[in-house]
Amino acid sequence: MEGKEEDVKLGANKYAERQPLGTAAQTGKDYKEPPPAPLFEPGELHSWSFYRAGIAEFVATFLFLYLSILTVMGVSRSKDKCASVGIQGIAWAFGGGHINPAMTFGLLLARKLSLTRALFYIIMQCLGAICGAGVVKGFQKTEYMRLNGGANFVNHEYTKGDGLAAEIVGTFILVYTIFSATDATRKARDSHVPILAPLPIGFAVFLVHLATIPITGTGINPARSLGAAIIYNRDCAWDDQWIFWVGPFVGAALAAAYHQIIIGAIPFKTRA
Amino acid sequence: MEGKEEDVKLGANKYAERQPLGTAAQTGKDYKEPPPAPLFEPGELHSWSFYRAGIAEFVATFLFLYLSILTVMGVSRSKDKCASVGIQGIAWAFGGGHINPAMTFGLLLARKLSLTRALFYIIMQCLGAICGAGVVKGFQKTEYMRLNGGANFVNHEYTKGDGLAAEIVGTFILVYTIFSATDATRKARDSHVPILAPLPIGFAVFLVHLATIPITGTGINPARSLGAAIIYNRDCAWDDQWIFWVGPFVGAALAAAYHQIIIGAIPFKTRA
Amino acid sequence: MEGKEEDVKLGANKYAERQPLGTAAQTGKDYKEPPPAPLFEPGELHSWSFYRAGIAEFVATFLFLYLSILTVMGVSRSKDKCASVGIQGIAWAFGGGHINPAMTFGLLLARKLSLTRALFYIIMQCLGAICGAGVVKGFQKTEYMRLNGGANFVNHEYTKGDGLAAEIVGTFILVYTIFSATDATRKARDSHVPILAPLPIGFAVFLVHLATIPITGTGINPARSLGAAIIYNRDCAWDDQWIFWVGPFVGAALAAAYHQIIIGAIPFKTRA
Amino acid sequence: MEGKEEDVKLGANKYAERQPLGTAAQTGKDYKEPPPAPLFEPGELHSWSFYRAGIAEFVATFLFLYLSILTVMGVSRSKDKCASVGIQGIAWAFGGGHINPAMTFGLLLARKLSLTRALFYIIMQCLGAICGAGVVKGFQKTEYMRLNGGANFVNHEYTKGDGLAAEIVGTFILVYTIFSATDATRKARDSHVPILAPLPIGFAVFLVHLATIPITGTGINPARSLGAAIIYNRDCAWDDQWIFWVGPFVGAALAAAYHQIIIGAIPFKTRA
Repeated sequence: MEGKEEDVKLGANKYAERQPLGTAAQTGKDYKEPPPAPLFEPGELHSWSFYRAGIAEFVATFLFLYLSILTVMGVSRSKDKCASVGIQGIAWAFGGGHINPAMTFGLLLARKLSLTRALFYIIMQCLGAICGAGVVKGFQKTEYMRLNGGANFVNHEYTKGDGLAAEIVGTFILVYTIFSATDATRKARDSHVPILAPLPIGFAVFLVHLATIPITGTGINPARSLGAAIIYNRDCAWDDQWIFWVGPFVGAALAAAYHQIIIGAIPFKTRA
Repeated sequence: MEGKEEDVKLGANKYAERQPLGTAAQTGKDYKEPPPAPLFEPGELHSWSFYRAGIAEFVATFLFLYLSILTVMGVSRSKDKCASVGIQGIAWAFGGGHINPAMTFGLLLARKLSLTRALFYIIMQCLGAICGAGVVKGFQKTEYMRLNGGANFVNHEYTKGDGLAAEIVGTFILVYTIFSATDATRKARDSHVPILAPLPIGFAVFLVHLATIPITGTGINPARSLGAAIIYNRDCAWDDQWIFWVGPFVGAALAAAYHQIIIGAIPFKTRA
Repeated sequence: MEGKEEDVKLGANKYAERQPLGTAAQTGKDYKEPPPAPLFEPGELHSWSFYRAGIAEFVATFLFLYLSILTVMGVSRSKDKCASVGIQGIAWAFGGGHINPAMTFGLLLARKLSLTRALFYIIMQCLGAICGAGVVKGFQKTEYMRLNGGANFVNHEYTKGDGLAAEIVGTFILVYTIFSATDATRKARDSHVPILAPLPIGFAVFLVHLATIPITGTGINPARSLGAAIIYNRDCAWDDQWIFWVGPFVGAALAAAYHQIIIGAIPFKTRA
Repeated sequence: MEGKEEDVKLGANKYAERQPLGTAAQTGKDYKEPPPAPLFEPGELHSWSFYRAGIAEFVATFLFLYLSILTVMGVSRSKDKCASVGIQGIAWAFGGGHINPAMTFGLLLARKLSLTRALFYIIMQCLGAICGAGVVKGFQKTEYMRLNGGANFVNHEYTKGDGLAAEIVGTFILVYTIFSATDATRKARDSHVPILAPLPIGFAVFLVHLATIPITGTGINPARSLGAAIIYNRDCAWDDQWIFWVGPFVGAALAAAYHQIIIGAIPFKTRA
């Protein structure tokens, strides 16, 4: 309870907690379009909410990797039977999670959180991803290694350039959808409907997986790609690792720019 | 920011931007049932919002074709194994997009946008579709051609008349659903719930695909059919091309009329 | 416009139009819990809204049968490959429609519409179903007959009693879900959220299909069973036809009673 | 009507009825964060609402087992063809139900209901589950026994520890999601959006099933595991039964703690 008071006083808690897996947007009735977040917010480092948000990122990314790699493995095992269903199943499983450094990067570019906080979130996401992949490997080491452990790499039928393009466009779609949903939330919040974002975002992720799993296994999330690579730890996962960082970060930057220039400029606030 | 002011002054921006893939309805609290759009709105051509909306149509249709043709190809490759799942997968993938000349035509008939704007949107949609299909072909030319590149044609088991009927009824369902959702949006907007449309529309598209993919591959979107035909560029795609323009436009017109006469006349505004 | 005035004057249009496929609940801000509908409402027969609602029932049931039988046929054709996917696909396809005499009967028992209107709706639903099935048969007569045309009958592995029980429980779940959603709508309407019903209802229908397609093909909709039986017109569809009327009507009556006694009595309005 | 008055007088009905399958949250405009429920609420035992809520638990759990075991059996029968689809189908079918002693236990820890009520709910859930499984067995006894009747046990490829861990994490995800949705509901209720919870909860359950069906068949619901074990009644179902009680209760307790300490402390009510 004291932590709360402190946070409010420090002003460090205004729009900082991205909501972990399955929760709805946090709303207050006194919502206003916040000013751009400063790059460094010194008070932040002393607020309990800063660390709590980091823990929530860790837990959510952990659960995300745990669920998705377990599902990938379950589906891969019956590969020769019904591969395209596998693709669908994998896609659905990933649809539920979006704890993602590319997303954090996009929000940083949009000045929604400070640089300090963005770095802290990304680190916690990567740690969560590593632990999530590790627990799945703990369940069944042999199977995990045999089935590639959910690691991302460019399928041999495609060039590195194809893989990079697929990651850029895929992350563009994801981050653009999140920006739109965030806007919707903001607008809707004005009109009292704060919590519809999760589904369309999950659906966008699902569509991207359906389209690009055959190309790269669908990264669009550097924490996931890194966590799987570290636990899997074979050359093929490391050789293409840069694609799963450069692609998502470029895609996120393009989405932030597109949203800002083409969509975000719509004058819907001029009358209110 | 200047663009905003200008648009508002010109009155050219009131209900013009159809929302691209994944965004929620744009709402203001001062919403009123707008007067019918004029056929020609001269100021429009000088407003930044007019071109921005066109760019958004281009990008959304581009992404729509990119996602859907990539998915069609991924599913087709494992054809002999589990074809009906393929149908389902394709249907889901298309469920997410609805940037569509038939829809624009229906909205034009309902006087929701000007003729100028409708034409501009349709051109941008077609350009976006061509580019989206082109990028997918760029990834894997041989595969693209071997798997028909998402082009629509009437399956040899069916007559041209069957295909035309399937496109008319399918587009009727799509456009009717959109009109209903738009109404819901309008009514809901009064009661502060602006953003529920995407899901039922996607679901309607999904159902139509589930039903008619075996007949025509499911067009119900002339931009998609044209884009795929131009990039695929074989006779079979061109011979039936007229079906994927006439069918959707007739279906859209019927839906607009049905909605106007049977559903739209419901006197729910008489009391407010 | 005149029709509107008239309806309002006659009081015949207060809560009568059930919304067809894909539309949201019709709402006015002056919503009040309506008094029970009279069994006979003489003015009704002279109001345009009465016939318009009947036409909407016809069109929606037509589209429902059209979509679902086409999908059943598409899925059945690849039967030997992936039957359980077929079940899933069929279930999804049916998830979208709920224009249904059992539902109308349940609403009649709950005194939400007059007997006249209920009978008129049921007749229009049956006519729509017959036409919908007829159009699909028109597409491909041979295939239609070979694949049973979406007709319902009890699978030879099960007894008639099993089939009847499955229809009763299935319709119970459907109608109970609709009652709950209607309540939600009413309550939500008070709090300005009128249009969330479609999804959970569709999902309930989906689950019931997933469970009972192997037993009866899942009727839970007498209009659908009758329409398919008339167009298919073979003994097997007629021998079990009574099950698809008795089962759904008993299930609907039980759901209405359960909702009234156990759920509907929750005193949430005492404070308002 | 008298029952209502009485309940209100006794104060026993404020936030007690968890909503059964498919219903939306019960809301009043005068909603306030309730005080923690007492462990024993003597008046409760004399209120009709107490028993009505228990009956609703029974019916909902009955329907849940009925639907899910029927679906498991339908999918299992075509096992050799398309097993991974089976997994998906099962997962979806379970996605709709969440009448669950682990959930009741989590809500008890969060002081949302009294101990008396929690025990009564859990007993009714177990009775409902037994009857639901019994009816399915009644349909087809031989098939039911041959296909394991939806009973949970740890797959021979995994250790008991793996199974316990999978149940703990799975229930953690479920109960955490419910707590978040409940919060969302509460916050949203303030802003007039009470009924969005069902979908994300169902989706969380779906993801957990997708991930852990290969390990334990996915319990995360002791009533379901017990009901299936009693009706199936073979050693394999009883030997692992403890895992499906200890795992879910531990997972629920962890989720309640995590929500309380990391998420629930977010100071969103400080301003209101």
